[in-house]
Amino acid sequence: MALLYLSTADRAEVWKPLFAAAGEEMIIGEAAVTDPAAITHIVCWVPPQDLRRYPNLRVVISTGAGIDQMPAMPEGVSLVRTLAPGIEEMVRDWVVMATLMLHREMPVYLGQQRAAEWKTRPVPLSRGTRVGIMGLGRIGLLAAETLRGMGFDVAGWSRSGRPAEGIEVFGAEGMDAFLARSDILICLLPLTAETRGLMDAAFFEKLPKGAMLVHAGRGAQLDMAALKGALDAGQLASAMLDVTDPEPLPADHWAWADPRLVITPHVAANTDAAEGARHVLNVLRASRAGEPLPGLVDQARGY
Amino acid sequence: MALLYLSTADRAEVWKPLFAAAGEEMIIGEAAVTDPAAITHIVCWVPPQDLRRYPNLRVVISTGAGIDQMPAMPEGVSLVRTLAPGIEEMVRDWVVMATLMLHREMPVYLGQQRAAEWKTRPVPLSRGTRVGIMGLGRIGLLAAETLRGMGFDVAGWSRSGRPAEGIEVFGAEGMDAFLARSDILICLLPLTAETRGLMDAAFFEKLPKGAMLVHAGRGAQLDMAALKGALDAGQLASAMLDVTDPEPLPADHWAWADPRLVITPHVAANTDAAEGARHVLNVLRASRAGEPLPGLVDQARGY
Repeated sequence: MALLYLSTADRAEVWKPLFAAAGEEMIIGEAAVTDPAAITHIVCWVPPQDLRRYPNLRVVISTGAGIDQMPAMPEGVSLVRTLAPGIEEMVRDWVVMATLMLHREMPVYLGQQRAAEWKTRPVPLSRGTRVGIMGLGRIGLLAAETLRGMGFDVAGWSRSGRPAEGIEVFGAEGMDAFLARSDILICLLPLTAETRGLMDAAFFEKLPKGAMLVHAGRGAQLDMAALKGALDAGQLASAMLDVTDPEPLPADHWAWADPRLVITPHVAANTDAAEGARHVLNVLRASRAGEPLPGLVDQARGY
Repeated sequence: MALLYLSTADRAEVWKPLFAAAGEEMIIGEAAVTDPAAITHIVCWVPPQDLRRYPNLRVVISTGAGIDQMPAMPEGVSLVRTLAPGIEEMVRDWVVMATLMLHREMPVYLGQQRAAEWKTRPVPLSRGTRVGIMGLGRIGLLAAETLRGMGFDVAGWSRSGRPAEGIEVFGAEGMDAFLARSDILICLLPLTAETRGLMDAAFFEKLPKGAMLVHAGRGAQLDMAALKGALDAGQLASAMLDVTDPEPLPADHWAWADPRLVITPHVAANTDAAEGARHVLNVLRASRAGEPLPGLVDQARGY
């Protein structure tokens, strides 16, 4: 059993001593592979084109929590996402920050700061402001808990519509009603065939006029031209994006300079190198013991 | 018993019908006073120079939650602040937003957005980040509750050092130890003789190198030149200010363009006109009934 490591060199330096201490073999880069049949696990963001080169491959591990960048796996190969303590809390923190920044009109105040202008505006109450969270995995539920604690009127949407404590949950059929009551909409959905291109002009029309968007899902879920149209029409007041399409956002993209947008470069969360290594060691240990793999992805469902 | 109203004309329009409905007399502006002896209550931000003109004055009511702009009251005159539902929650929301914006390096990311630069940075965990809250009134305790719920390691400082649930509280003698453990320092203190000029160069030296400041107290508590010195020396990494000295901040002030600062124009909270009127009606009712005045200020203590 051996792991093929296909990630950055600086991260490898952190991993090496941890693998040595655990007595696990780690081969760095495809060029270093002398016996492809020895490779049972690969850790990478995107795998090599031809996985059939590794006849005994059993598991591909994403270096991140996301797996939507992965191609379909060959039969018999499991796909695993990186689970690291803290990732969910990091995204929750970013989402709560972004929600408050839009609620408290920070795009307007940042514009006033650039213009050296001291001008007060009425202060909105969180109590009564309706927040809608699309995607009720662990991150969505954490964000709901914090925002409810601050008085926001929080509802959620998930494909299953499974009830969650303390919030109204809309299911697949309830999307229009859910959007109609979302003053601030938060997207935390995984990228799947169903969510690709989800947020388009018709979608924004279903929100209350002047709604705000917090996007921490995936860039390809948001039609950037439709976003601009909705902002220009006043259908959306502002948006905070941690993901964009394309990504990275090119330097000459209109979105950078739009005063109604705040953009962060896909940093709602990232994985500490040592935590990533510990997760992979846990996967190797579970593989050897024949136990359930931590972070195993349901490939049919796509997340 | 009559109220003299000394505030803005647009606010008066909101108050008039509410006073009429309550059967209370409201005289708008000193020019409209025909019998000074009839005036028992004055509502204002800053009172008239010569309060002795009103021999039967019993209560001065600040239009805001703050009363540090008020001169000493003549003997026998009570001072009352405006209590309005939501003010504490508004400030809590701003403080949580500001804490997250500094913690997640928004000043850096906003600078990158201005430069159209997509560049990730390591993401810090809230767990283990030490937040110190100066001022443990109702707002400080609300902020502590939300920030603790997000995993921050929260401590507080108050003059009394009175214990508070779930957080370590430092008292008057413990200021240095409190500052030494505050990665993010939040100021919510009232302006008093003791807190005027509190945050100067020597004060910032007591914080950990690279600390961050969230200021929602009063402008006169912060030495703006010392703030610039601490930022330039790297002693402070960044700050978020809702109050400044002077205030409003002049258009040519260096602070507007400093990329390490985010400035909002004293909008952590403001009072809805109707809520302010309802508070004053409550004060009039309590005065008449001889009951404790809501929002009564301890003038010896200064808050």
